[in-house]
Amino acid sequence: MNTINETSETELIVKTLLKTWSLQITRINDLLTSIGDEAMLKEIAPGKNTGIYLLGHLVAVHDALFPLLGFGNKLYPEREKPFLAEPDKSGFQFPSMEELKQNWHTVNDQLDKKFNQLDPKAWLTKHEAVSAEDFIKEPHRNKLNVLISRTTHMSYHHGQLILLRENSK
Amino acid sequence: MNTINETSETELIVKTLLKTWSLQITRINDLLTSIGDEAMLKEIAPGKNTGIYLLGHLVAVHDALFPLLGFGNKLYPEREKPFLAEPDKSGFQFPSMEELKQNWHTVNDQLDKKFNQLDPKAWLTKHEAVSAEDFIKEPHRNKLNVLISRTTHMSYHHGQLILLRENSK
Repeated sequence: MNTINETSETELIVKTLLKTWSLQITRINDLLTSIGDEAMLKEIAPGKNTGIYLLGHLVAVHDALFPLLGFGNKLYPEREKPFLAEPDKSGFQFPSMEELKQNWHTVNDQLDKKFNQLDPKAWLTKHEAVSAEDFIKEPHRNKLNVLISRTTHMSYHHGQLILLRENSK
Repeated sequence: MNTINETSETELIVKTLLKTWSLQITRINDLLTSIGDEAMLKEIAPGKNTGIYLLGHLVAVHDALFPLLGFGNKLYPEREKPFLAEPDKSGFQFPSMEELKQNWHTVNDQLDKKFNQLDPKAWLTKHEAVSAEDFIKEPHRNKLNVLISRTTHMSYHHGQLILLRENSK
């Protein structure tokens, strides 16, 4: 029984969560514009991760959403090893900031398209890392849960990247 | 028409969001245990906010949820001025870390009770900073939206506080 109310409640919440996701993306994009590529090569604090590593890490984590949410293959699988499997300063040569920023924008633009094509109710279907059997017992392991957890993940690293901006606190 | 499906979808999503909130709280609590009070007096990076300021800030922001969500008055209104209205190093004397940690735990415990008393559907009702008229046109200005935005806010500062831990990256 699919009532109007049911659809509209789920739709409203999904819209809110997609808006929250987009807001975090916009904030990071604004930050990238304001701090410049050179500052991104610095550590966010002495001995901690560099800005470029964190951006590569965000690219790799967002790129992994394509297979996880059943949207298709990763766009930049080569980013996984240096930015996700390995910590910063592992000896891997990083791509240029320009290339990485392009990756970041492309991944997010393509995800955005996929997100908006998804029916609100489809967000409550299982993601690809859970079996159909387990999903019956654990219905919270759905696509929306993944979106939520990647949103807080992005916000976590945004709080770190902002430290590279001269006048931030 | 309030079908079982409708209730269960909203309930499932609200549960997921409450779990995400609790997870962020747990992470910050674990962090507070692992870094110790003295390290919290330091800046997260040179020239940036101190750990104690960020904890006070989180106390003030979470405490403001009581009136905003219609749960009652703030528990520690005196935390607003030094930790929310003013930036760090404004000259205000801070409470001790012990006192502030107690505030933090009390605010979150009390919020947790209120959160769990709230019917899943009540999360979609308006918060107190929006008028009934505006809410008709802007139904996303609901309590759940507030929960989501305070969850990403907490995650943002968690990403900063973790820098105070010696072995973190």
